[in-house]
Amino acid sequence: GPEPLYILGPCVIESEEFVWRMARQLKAIASEVGIQFVFKASYDKANRTSVKSFRGLDVREGCQILANIGKELGVPVTTDVHSPEETKIAAEYIDILQIPAFLCRQTDLIQAAAETKRVVNVKKGQFLAPWDVKNIADKLLSFGNDQFFFTERGATFGYNNLVADMRSLYWIREAGYPVVFDATHSVQRPGGGGDKTSGDGVLAPVLARAAAAAGCDGIFIETHEDPSKALSDGPNQIPLAQLPSLLKQLRQIHDLVR
Amino acid sequence: GPEPLYILGPCVIESEEFVWRMARQLKAIASEVGIQFVFKASYDKANRTSVKSFRGLDVREGCQILANIGKELGVPVTTDVHSPEETKIAAEYIDILQIPAFLCRQTDLIQAAAETKRVVNVKKGQFLAPWDVKNIADKLLSFGNDQFFFTERGATFGYNNLVADMRSLYWIREAGYPVVFDATHSVQRPGGGGDKTSGDGVLAPVLARAAAAAGCDGIFIETHEDPSKALSDGPNQIPLAQLPSLLKQLRQIHDLVR
Amino acid sequence: GPEPLYILGPCVIESEEFVWRMARQLKAIASEVGIQFVFKASYDKANRTSVKSFRGLDVREGCQILANIGKELGVPVTTDVHSPEETKIAAEYIDILQIPAFLCRQTDLIQAAAETKRVVNVKKGQFLAPWDVKNIADKLLSFGNDQFFFTERGATFGYNNLVADMRSLYWIREAGYPVVFDATHSVQRPGGGGDKTSGDGVLAPVLARAAAAAGCDGIFIETHEDPSKALSDGPNQIPLAQLPSLLKQLRQIHDLVR
Amino acid sequence: GPEPLYILGPCVIESEEFVWRMARQLKAIASEVGIQFVFKASYDKANRTSVKSFRGLDVREGCQILANIGKELGVPVTTDVHSPEETKIAAEYIDILQIPAFLCRQTDLIQAAAETKRVVNVKKGQFLAPWDVKNIADKLLSFGNDQFFFTERGATFGYNNLVADMRSLYWIREAGYPVVFDATHSVQRPGGGGDKTSGDGVLAPVLARAAAAAGCDGIFIETHEDPSKALSDGPNQIPLAQLPSLLKQLRQIHDLVR
Repeated sequence: GPEPLYILGPCVIESEEFVWRMARQLKAIASEVGIQFVFKASYDKANRTSVKSFRGLDVREGCQILANIGKELGVPVTTDVHSPEETKIAAEYIDILQIPAFLCRQTDLIQAAAETKRVVNVKKGQFLAPWDVKNIADKLLSFGNDQFFFTERGATFGYNNLVADMRSLYWIREAGYPVVFDATHSVQRPGGGGDKTSGDGVLAPVLARAAAAAGCDGIFIETHEDPSKALSDGPNQIPLAQLPSLLKQLRQIHDLVR
Repeated sequence: GPEPLYILGPCVIESEEFVWRMARQLKAIASEVGIQFVFKASYDKANRTSVKSFRGLDVREGCQILANIGKELGVPVTTDVHSPEETKIAAEYIDILQIPAFLCRQTDLIQAAAETKRVVNVKKGQFLAPWDVKNIADKLLSFGNDQFFFTERGATFGYNNLVADMRSLYWIREAGYPVVFDATHSVQRPGGGGDKTSGDGVLAPVLARAAAAAGCDGIFIETHEDPSKALSDGPNQIPLAQLPSLLKQLRQIHDLVR
Repeated sequence: GPEPLYILGPCVIESEEFVWRMARQLKAIASEVGIQFVFKASYDKANRTSVKSFRGLDVREGCQILANIGKELGVPVTTDVHSPEETKIAAEYIDILQIPAFLCRQTDLIQAAAETKRVVNVKKGQFLAPWDVKNIADKLLSFGNDQFFFTERGATFGYNNLVADMRSLYWIREAGYPVVFDATHSVQRPGGGGDKTSGDGVLAPVLARAAAAAGCDGIFIETHEDPSKALSDGPNQIPLAQLPSLLKQLRQIHDLVR
Repeated sequence: GPEPLYILGPCVIESEEFVWRMARQLKAIASEVGIQFVFKASYDKANRTSVKSFRGLDVREGCQILANIGKELGVPVTTDVHSPEETKIAAEYIDILQIPAFLCRQTDLIQAAAETKRVVNVKKGQFLAPWDVKNIADKLLSFGNDQFFFTERGATFGYNNLVADMRSLYWIREAGYPVVFDATHSVQRPGGGGDKTSGDGVLAPVLARAAAAAGCDGIFIETHEDPSKALSDGPNQIPLAQLPSLLKQLRQIHDLVR
């Protein structure tokens, strides 16, 4: 099998300085562990639970920062887009355009992303059966883009809970599409924190290892120098200090099962 | 308790002639049964399962038709909006702006709808716990709009299935918000038809009656002269011919429990 | 349609005096409201969450008390059985033998109940799809008993939660079997109280009304003079004082929809 | 960490000759791979979906066969028990008594198993939250048995489907109990085959690998020379011929993560 892809980065561009520092540290870790990585950060958190939450930067400003980081460090970059208009701007700068899970059924957004000819990463909605990604794939293909993959990020399981169904990774691959496992969003407890999303960060490495062993084409991990101070999604991010050992382990598991 | 609200109409504006004919028939039925109704139709189906599905009309064109119907027949009209831009246009014509379930967490859309000062109907996402509508209510209030209500349309229940949790109606009312029950979308089988959403139309009256008896502020029903020929969501729409007896029954149940 | 059946009683025989007092009060309420009722109480709670919980009486002793009540008040009685041996003893005294939900797949128990020739009420397991009651029906029929019905008492919905799927009532009836809705167990929060099952008693009338309107052949309600002092399942029982008005309402809804 | 435990065997004692042949082949495979294994087979399938299904042998007869196999091959043996009476008989012969998932809340059965002083393996009910195994542990402890562990075998996920929540393994271990992952029952589709349980045998190795990587104390796998001819649960058993390579892989993953 091919090399697995690791999509790593903080949830959001908390500041230009912050995101550069994170990217440099991740680049060093990836080199040390010997893995290929894509740097991820969001410029905007468009679907925050509460209106009081931090949102982020303007799309062009955020994407320029990411593009500069990518060029300087020699790594591909990715971010999530929320409308056809944003998609066109982001595509000027960004290697992999990510469609948020809640928006995976919005045809106009899928079309806009497809038509940029960039690689598209569609997060599978929490409400979507694994085999139903085929309809999204067919939309992307019909709009002329065959450079896409899906990300599994957990399925709705009762209220305020998600479950990561490891069978999903198998089914999506069987359907012919590459699939990445998002270890940090899969441990979210949506709405579990009242006016913010809580989560079980300690479980993210557990699920990342499980997904690597189940078989997938990559792992997505949000990480932060100090998750307790993160401006978004802190409770489920993995502390940067724990990343090297986790990535080594994931790498070894991947080598075992491919 | 106050009079219940009935939101009735076809899924989509299949043609101008079709939607006028439907509205006139619904007006006659509502008068006969003695209920208050809001006429509903979508100008665009922005999140169809498959790209091959019928989408609809331009936003302004569609909303003008609905506004003309509303003025002529003396009924409020409603439609669903999918972006801040559409929202502004729709608000020129439409009495109640509906936020689609998949988009209920998109802050920009909530803000745009709130700022129109129109009544806003937020469909509760299939992935959202009933008590978490409070966060959406707080967003609407913070953007200056207190004329809103929620619609329950089923919760994700395993793959390709939704369950209508009747407790949700109680919890949303207890939280202080009016709640409408969407009987026809709650019986959808998302993705259950392969490249289209299937459903159990025969179950929609069952759930409508249950919701009326559980206690809610209104019922939303999509209806069609001939569901088998509907251009969208046919399998879960209620045939127009069955509507009078169902609405009478719902009316009586409502009178019993309020 | 035929008259609906109301299965009413306390969760468990807390004492002989208690259960006689409850039965007499229920008899008076049923006469006042004009409904047919079956008196229910368990002699033993065989599957309590915690070993510290109250369990109850010996099977023969408990069933004799119930039989005496039935004879004196002229009402059928029902109780739940947990093994083939208990089933044979209970059948000497009891009109309707109830199979607990967790045990609905135990063939020996189904066979023992079927062979008593008593009426059998199988509670549908929280893990069972509505259409799968057919397999249980086929077992009962193959053991020579066609006097049975099913009770819907909620389906597993994530962790520590049940959802009452009103479609289930329709599907079970469509399959050709009578179905009763258990309003008080459907609002349980299994394990939600740590070492006991908690629940939302306030929701039981909501779900009872919804089920009556959806269409079912009966309603099962556990009731107690003072739920806060009940030795079992207190949090989801309905206070006896609220029963008359609830039963009147259920009766009226039933008349409307049949 | 300690050596992981592998519980291996056919679903049911199809015949004495069959079960000896399976045990000898498994012994050879375990020696080759270098793992510790417990031989598992059921004497009776007490909760078959349909009454037409094969059930098995008498308890004493079945347990004697297993005990003879255990003595001859020098391996511990395990089987599942369904009543207090069976439990006492089985305990004369069997090293590890397994409590079926549907029966995990039956206090009398837990008590009978605990009092045999044998090791007890409680399968976690499909309807039970991972943290609620504590109540079962407390029952076992109060009956004087601290030699027990739990087996995760999937949670109810909508209708006719189970999901293996890998977080469960972490939570059960965190609560202080050893946990085994049942890879073949977790891929069942309960009732999915109409009058029998279907499943996705191809997914069992996927979930077994995921569980080993997530972290657990053992793996339970049902295997058959020819699953298509198995008298019970064929669709989810792993062909014996695939077992050596799978067990090697699981062994390596376990070494990596402990």
